Amino acid sequence: MTETGNPVPTHPFDAAVALTPRGGDRFAGHTHPAYGNMVGPFGGITAATLLRAAQQHPDRLGDPLALTVNFAGPVADGPFEVTATPLRTNRSTQHFALTLTQDGAVRTTGTAVFGTGRTTWTDTEAVAPDVKAPEDVPVRPSPGHVAFTDNYEIRFVEGALPDGETAGQADSTTTLWMRDRPVRPLDHAALAALADVFYPRVLLRTGRFVPAGTVSLTTYFHADAARLAAQGDEPVLGRARAGGFGNGFFDQSARLWARDGALLATSHQWVYFKD
Amino acid sequence: MTETGNPVPTHPFDAAVALTPRGGDRFAGHTHPAYGNMVGPFGGITAATLLRAAQQHPDRLGDPLALTVNFAGPVADGPFEVTATPLRTNRSTQHFALTLTQDGAVRTTGTAVFGTGRTTWTDTEAVAPDVKAPEDVPVRPSPGHVAFTDNYEIRFVEGALPDGETAGQADSTTTLWMRDRPVRPLDHAALAALADVFYPRVLLRTGRFVPAGTVSLTTYFHADAARLAAQGDEPVLGRARAGGFGNGFFDQSARLWARDGALLATSHQWVYFKD
Repeated sequence: MTETGNPVPTHPFDAAVALTPRGGDRFAGHTHPAYGNMVGPFGGITAATLLRAAQQHPDRLGDPLALTVNFAGPVADGPFEVTATPLRTNRSTQHFALTLTQDGAVRTTGTAVFGTGRTTWTDTEAVAPDVKAPEDVPVRPSPGHVAFTDNYEIRFVEGALPDGETAGQADSTTTLWMRDRPVRPLDHAALAALADVFYPRVLLRTGRFVPAGTVSLTTYFHADAARLAAQGDEPVLGRARAGGFGNGFFDQSARLWARDGALLATSHQWVYFKD
Repeated sequence: MTETGNPVPTHPFDAAVALTPRGGDRFAGHTHPAYGNMVGPFGGITAATLLRAAQQHPDRLGDPLALTVNFAGPVADGPFEVTATPLRTNRSTQHFALTLTQDGAVRTTGTAVFGTGRTTWTDTEAVAPDVKAPEDVPVRPSPGHVAFTDNYEIRFVEGALPDGETAGQADSTTTLWMRDRPVRPLDHAALAALADVFYPRVLLRTGRFVPAGTVSLTTYFHADAARLAAQGDEPVLGRARAGGFGNGFFDQSARLWARDGALLATSHQWVYFKD
């Protein structure tokens, strides 16, 4: 039994977002093969890693409220450095600037807002769609072409990834149940990654595997730590849809709910595509 | 006739977002009384000013695609400095980090993505609502309690600002026609400001003027320069709605269309409130 050093994370998600403090605002990380995408890591795991850096900052205040991550350049397999710089700390909110660099070149930029919530009036206008329980929806077989999808248990209610033989459809909506595989209690970093699980909507519209990738991703965290603790490792209901396509880009928005209809997160992204 | 120096901007919007290059990534600006809000300037004019800094950067590539602005602390009336730092420039996209500082303290943080578009497949799923033409909707009288609203010609189709005597309503949707007043040809900076014209949705839901303010604002620019040129100074149709309220915060999303239904921008924000 080894008693020195940090415990080795047993879940692949925790291994993938693990960071070693290098002092001050700097953290060292390494890409994880389990979260590989077509080129470099899954964007969701990069977003989660930047958020985790801010969470680990010694001066961190409260919980994540808003996260923006811009995918500026490809992240190569290997080590990277993350900076999470608290540019301003108020009484109940804190603002971070975020970067991920490799070999001195910026690969990812971003900002995060942290803060402490208060008990207030609560209401959800974005009501969860009325769909089958996750137990009644089959788990998607792994599509196999990229590694990271094996780390998510996905149950498509509608709008599954095209199989290359179906025509495009008129509406880009995907509704699904999802959670980490193996199961893992939900936290803000895992929620940040889940928000990016929806594949690019242009694939569903065109029915073709056109090149597409997230340029900018923004997630708002409605769930506080107590709400996440109540969620545990239960499936999360998600729905995503695009707004408009043109000039080589489109936007898509997603909402994530707990089984009881509580809104956990809302997320938006700007995506590049080729047709 | 004076022939020295820069021409003095004649429209208050141009005066408010005017910046003087201080070399490299630094620009000097000054708040404008015409865009004052309850405390400090209207958030939309601050967002437009940060975008304008990136636009004026000598190394700037292409047009704005995505802008995130975080309102970290109050901006006081007076001079300020903006930094727009291009952290990465690719062949067709460029990523800026943004800050606004006063007296050495960061007041606003952000990021911007610029790029060059290509002609691609175009489609709008977020279809413009079928509403009366702007000529058939009366212009709102100025509410008068804050300066900046006088610079916008607003025609509420539904969801007008509560008058303090009406009850809250069950749905937070506001639909309106809007443009700069006096009229001014639309550009990306003015569009960034228009995206923040919608007042906090919690006012509409509660029917009360509770304290509320934007914490983080993200806007995606669907309109390229050619589309904006076609828009000219015509009214823009906008619709905004909240997703979920709780823990002292809520999210709201807005879409902005041209009269012919072209999607010009989509915008999202995370808002603090007290009840």
